[in-house]
Amino acid sequence: MRLRVHGPSAHAADVLRCATRLARRSVHARPSYYPAKVAIYEVGARDGLQNEPTVLDAAERTAFINMLSMTGVASVEAASFVHPKLVPQMAGAAEIMQTIRRHKHVAYPVLVPNRRGYDDALKAGSSAVAVMCSASNTFAQRNVKQTMQQQVEGAVELAADAVGRGVPVRGYISCALGCPFEGAVPVEVVVALAKALADAGCDEVVLADTIGTGTPGGMAALLASVQPQVPVERLAVHCHDTYGQALANILVALQHGVASIDSSVAGLGGCPFAGPGAAGNVATEDVLYMLHGLGIETGVDFDRVVLAGEYIIGKLGRGNASKAAVASLRRRPNDFTAATARAAAST
Amino acid sequence: MRLRVHGPSAHAADVLRCATRLARRSVHARPSYYPAKVAIYEVGARDGLQNEPTVLDAAERTAFINMLSMTGVASVEAASFVHPKLVPQMAGAAEIMQTIRRHKHVAYPVLVPNRRGYDDALKAGSSAVAVMCSASNTFAQRNVKQTMQQQVEGAVELAADAVGRGVPVRGYISCALGCPFEGAVPVEVVVALAKALADAGCDEVVLADTIGTGTPGGMAALLASVQPQVPVERLAVHCHDTYGQALANILVALQHGVASIDSSVAGLGGCPFAGPGAAGNVATEDVLYMLHGLGIETGVDFDRVVLAGEYIIGKLGRGNASKAAVASLRRRPNDFTAATARAAAST
Repeated sequence: MRLRVHGPSAHAADVLRCATRLARRSVHARPSYYPAKVAIYEVGARDGLQNEPTVLDAAERTAFINMLSMTGVASVEAASFVHPKLVPQMAGAAEIMQTIRRHKHVAYPVLVPNRRGYDDALKAGSSAVAVMCSASNTFAQRNVKQTMQQQVEGAVELAADAVGRGVPVRGYISCALGCPFEGAVPVEVVVALAKALADAGCDEVVLADTIGTGTPGGMAALLASVQPQVPVERLAVHCHDTYGQALANILVALQHGVASIDSSVAGLGGCPFAGPGAAGNVATEDVLYMLHGLGIETGVDFDRVVLAGEYIIGKLGRGNASKAAVASLRRRPNDFTAATARAAAST
Repeated sequence: MRLRVHGPSAHAADVLRCATRLARRSVHARPSYYPAKVAIYEVGARDGLQNEPTVLDAAERTAFINMLSMTGVASVEAASFVHPKLVPQMAGAAEIMQTIRRHKHVAYPVLVPNRRGYDDALKAGSSAVAVMCSASNTFAQRNVKQTMQQQVEGAVELAADAVGRGVPVRGYISCALGCPFEGAVPVEVVVALAKALADAGCDEVVLADTIGTGTPGGMAALLASVQPQVPVERLAVHCHDTYGQALANILVALQHGVASIDSSVAGLGGCPFAGPGAAGNVATEDVLYMLHGLGIETGVDFDRVVLAGEYIIGKLGRGNASKAAVASLRRRPNDFTAATARAAAST
C-alpha cells in the first residue's frame, strides 16, 4: 500500500518520504479572528501572593516584581493598599512602591479597595490604580462588608477622582461569571457594572471569574452582552482555574477580540472563598504557551516568566501550578539554570 | 449614583434591586456552532492506567470498568492486547473482556497494536477494536519498532479485516500535533494518514495530541486540513494536558464540529515519551464540566465519573488530576460519600 498525499504535495509518494521531505509548514498560523497582539497583565505579585498561605516580606516581593519587570509583560500589579491586619500578605505596599526598579515599558498598578487605600497608594507614588466591585451582593458583603451598590459607588468615585488627576485606572468586576454564595449571576448586573466603570473613566474594565466556575458558554454570552456597552479595546478578562476552565475561557475571550489578559506566574493564588486548596489564577506560562502557539504577539519572554515562577515558588515552598512551566523545565532543563536566571535578571 | 441597567431590564433602577429581582437568565446558552451532543470516549482504563507506575490486576481494572460503565459515557476503552512484558499494566486483557459487566449502551473497544493483539482480542470476545499509527517516523520506530509507513500499513490491514467481519474499528493517529523527537509534524502527513484510515473503513479517525504540545491554532489548522478528506462525523480528538492546553484544544475541535472526545477520568495517564511526571490525558471531569456548561448533551452523570475517579486514584495511591473533580469534591462533599458511590455502582 502506498499512501497518497493530497494538497500541495500531491507528488510525494508515501508518508515516510513525505515526512522527511516536506517543508515544515507551521501549524500555528493565526486565524484572523484572534487579536494580533495581547497585553499580559501579571497579577502574581498581588492576587497571587495575596492568596498564598506563606507571607513574604516587602523585600522578597520587590525582588519578585523586579524579575517580572524583565519578562516583557505590559503590567505588573504590584501591591494592594489594604489594611495589613486584613491581608498580611500585602503588608509593606508603600515600601514596595518606593523600592521596585521600574521598567519604562511596564505599568505598576496597585489595587485600592477603598478611599483610605487610594489615598495611601497615591501618597506612596503609585502611578496607576485598580478599583473593584462585585457582581454579587453576598460576595460584596462578605468581602468588603458593603452592599454591591455601595461598593460600586465607591469604585466609581475613586475612578473618577483618578481620572481627574490623570492617573490610569482599571476597574475589576468580581464574580462576573458566578458567585460562591449566590451561584449564577445575572448578565444584566455585570453589564450595568461594566458600563458604570467605563462611564466613570476606567481605562480598562476587567471581567473577573473570581471563583473559576465559568465555562466558555458563559464567557461568550457575557462578552456578547457587555460589548455593546464597553468597547472591546477597554475589556480585559481575569480567569481562575478552579474547575480547569481558565484557558478555554480565555480562548473564547480572544475570539471575541479581548486583547488584555490577566494571569499569574506559576498559577499562584486562588480565591479564599473558593475553598482551601483551590486551584489558583490561570498560570501566565500556560497563557503564553497558548498565545504564542496561536501566533499572537505578547512581547513576553516565556523562559524569563518560568524563571520568575521558579524563584517565587521556591520562596513560598510550594509546587509550580503551571503545566507549561513544569513541562518546559523537564524538557529543556538547560534553559533554566541558575546562570541563565542571573543573566535574565540582570539584562 | 444610581446605576442604569440596560437591555431587557431598562426599568430596573439600581444594581442591587436588579440582582435580586431579575430572573436568573442562564449564561450557558449553547451557541449554534457547537455540536448539540458529544460522545465521551473514556480512555482511563487503557491509556490512563497503561501510563501509571502502579500496576493494577485484572480484577481491579474490571471493577473500575464496571464503574465507568454506569456513568453514561459512550465508550470505555477496556484494554490493550499488547505483550504483558512490554506493558505490564495491561496484562490480563483477555480476562477483563470476559469478566466485565457490559452495559447495553456502552461500547468496549480494545487497542490492538498489531496482528497478534488483534487475533487475541477477537478470540477474547472483543466486539470493537482500535488500531494505531503515528504521524512521526521516529515516534513509530521508538514506540513499535516500525517505520511510520509499516505501522500505518499494518493498521490499515487490520482495519480492513475488522470491517470485513463487521467489527467496529477506530484508528488513532499519534503525534498528530507534534512529536517528542521530531517536533512539528507536517499537516499533510496527518491528512494522508487520516484518509488512509478512513478509506480502510475506520468508523472513527482519532487525531491524538499524544504529547500535549499542541495549541488551539495547530488544532484549528489540522482540522481545517483533515475535514475535506474525512467527514467531521468520523473524527475524534484525543488531547493530553502536558502544557495545560487540552481543554482549549478540545474547545476548538468542538467549534469545528467534532463530537467525539477522548478523555481520562481523574486525568489518569500521560505519555512515557513526554517525560516522567508529565501531566496526563485531559480529565473527563474537566471536559464534562465544560461541555455541560456549554449546554452540550453528553448523557454522562458528572458525579458518577467523579466517584469512579476517586475509586481509581485510591487504588493507584495518587492524587486526582482533575481540577473540576477536586473543586466539586471540596464544594459538595456530601454528594460524594461512600453510600452514594455504592448506590451509583449498583444502579
